[in-house]
Amino acid sequence: MNSHYIGVDLGGTKILTAIADKEGELISRSKLPTEADRGTGVIIENINRSINHALEQAGLDHRSIIRIGVGSPGPLSTGEGIIYENSNLPWKNVPIVDLLEEKTGIPVKLENDANAAAMGEKWFGAGRGIDNLIYVTISTGIGAGIIIERQVYHGINDGAGEVGHMTLEPEGPVCGCGNHGCFEALASGTAIGRMGREAVEEGQQTLIRELSDKNPDKIEAPLIARAARKGDAVARSIYQKAGYYLGIGLGNLVNLFNPEMIVLGGGVMKARELFMDDLLASLEERALTPSLSVLEVREVELGDDTGVMGAIAVAMEDRLIS
Amino acid sequence: MNSHYIGVDLGGTKILTAIADKEGELISRSKLPTEADRGTGVIIENINRSINHALEQAGLDHRSIIRIGVGSPGPLSTGEGIIYENSNLPWKNVPIVDLLEEKTGIPVKLENDANAAAMGEKWFGAGRGIDNLIYVTISTGIGAGIIIERQVYHGINDGAGEVGHMTLEPEGPVCGCGNHGCFEALASGTAIGRMGREAVEEGQQTLIRELSDKNPDKIEAPLIARAARKGDAVARSIYQKAGYYLGIGLGNLVNLFNPEMIVLGGGVMKARELFMDDLLASLEERALTPSLSVLEVREVELGDDTGVMGAIAVAMEDRLIS
Repeated sequence: MNSHYIGVDLGGTKILTAIADKEGELISRSKLPTEADRGTGVIIENINRSINHALEQAGLDHRSIIRIGVGSPGPLSTGEGIIYENSNLPWKNVPIVDLLEEKTGIPVKLENDANAAAMGEKWFGAGRGIDNLIYVTISTGIGAGIIIERQVYHGINDGAGEVGHMTLEPEGPVCGCGNHGCFEALASGTAIGRMGREAVEEGQQTLIRELSDKNPDKIEAPLIARAARKGDAVARSIYQKAGYYLGIGLGNLVNLFNPEMIVLGGGVMKARELFMDDLLASLEERALTPSLSVLEVREVELGDDTGVMGAIAVAMEDRLIS
Repeated sequence: MNSHYIGVDLGGTKILTAIADKEGELISRSKLPTEADRGTGVIIENINRSINHALEQAGLDHRSIIRIGVGSPGPLSTGEGIIYENSNLPWKNVPIVDLLEEKTGIPVKLENDANAAAMGEKWFGAGRGIDNLIYVTISTGIGAGIIIERQVYHGINDGAGEVGHMTLEPEGPVCGCGNHGCFEALASGTAIGRMGREAVEEGQQTLIRELSDKNPDKIEAPLIARAARKGDAVARSIYQKAGYYLGIGLGNLVNLFNPEMIVLGGGVMKARELFMDDLLASLEERALTPSLSVLEVREVELGDDTGVMGAIAVAMEDRLIS
């Protein structure tokens, strides 16, 4: 009898798969390398293998599964079930829903990874009981999933929530997208790394240089966090600057969406103590008082499981909503 | 028999009232001064008088009216029917819905003026047949009404769509709200006037000085438009700069909301030829390609009637949606 759901969190390096029962309780999980460099066929086969692993562990077979939810980096089309292209995966216009349905015989639903994560936190994490929230992930880039009235807001062609490319400094640093001063060019892990390399290049007195063995390629956000925790003033001010811009970007979201909650996730949050005060200070400065007065800012509750629990929420959305 | 709707567009200087039949066709209209300086009682009485005028002209009485829609500047609560306060009206926490219902015996529905205007264009103007659009008014300030799936998106406590206070230049010019570099501090009519005054103060060679009879108080957006149309380079570059920021602000909205259409209105649009090219150029630069590919940018179709037709749409929304 159909009784369970599968969530697949598809990343550039690993595939996280989990099985949940009808209440959303995890029954089993599996983790496999994506092997992204080996092409579409291998990736799809690896997803299939991770599903089979998880089924075996749970003592279930394919017929027990109502639906598979897949969270994947985009751009993609949720309606057509196609991943257009992706900087972490070597593919273009892959009809992942059709391919996986063929392989497994189970209905598949595709969602953008940030949107899926937002659903994970909304249904199983920090946002339980909250109908309107924005999940923001601060990582290599900055992404978001916008939940309005309990559902992901996709926009007309799955383009909504591209918060990382909101301009905050029109003449600011160049972004991966080619523009200047995008949110993620100012406040992502990548931006923090860039600021560290610039500080070293400029000859500033900083521990970042020593910690990197004078190799600029080693200067990334976690290394700068280490320097900051050792009291390095340059490293500290880099995180403070990122916090300042994070508050401005979130302030814009508050003034536009007036949500009940913002949920913060992503790898950069591991250094939260280095920027959270600055983030909150500039958020409070920029957001309008009436909207601020109803806003709660929280961190993800599901940690590294936000993505896979989100994929499960994608699979069981009909049930969750009803 | 109940058969008609009334729309009231409440402004700081005038009250525009109109009556429409069930198809949204205008039957009559009335315009009265708000007399905002004479206090709440007089304003409410003036609204009532304008309603009576419009009814007389239409040959209808109160019993013919199904509902009155009121579009008013905010902040306000649509749910509670209260206007909290307003820079153009001398009141605080006025329960306008209760007051007008008492006075007229007709059900009243309150909406923020920019949201009402968005509804006007959605149902009767440039956005007919479009379910997801953002109306942006470029005037003394910059406001917006966001329509998602045919309805105004209000946020949690009517705070959504405050696009004028989206930060675009964190260290930019001071805004009326006290912050720096808000969208409306960079690209509204007020911002254009300020740039003109600054150019004159800085001693730049410009017609703006002559046209203003050396009186800085006379330097406002329309005067600068006159100078620009006479070929004045300083005046032209001021409008181009406003266009540049307008494109950036709209680009942010496109990247966040991925709408089908942006509808532009407000007094500054009277000088559209002075900034539209720059607006579109920076919008195309900043908005992500997939979202841009489905976007249409249009101007209001209802002109000065956008507000009052919006108020009528507020009154008849149940009927329009069904």
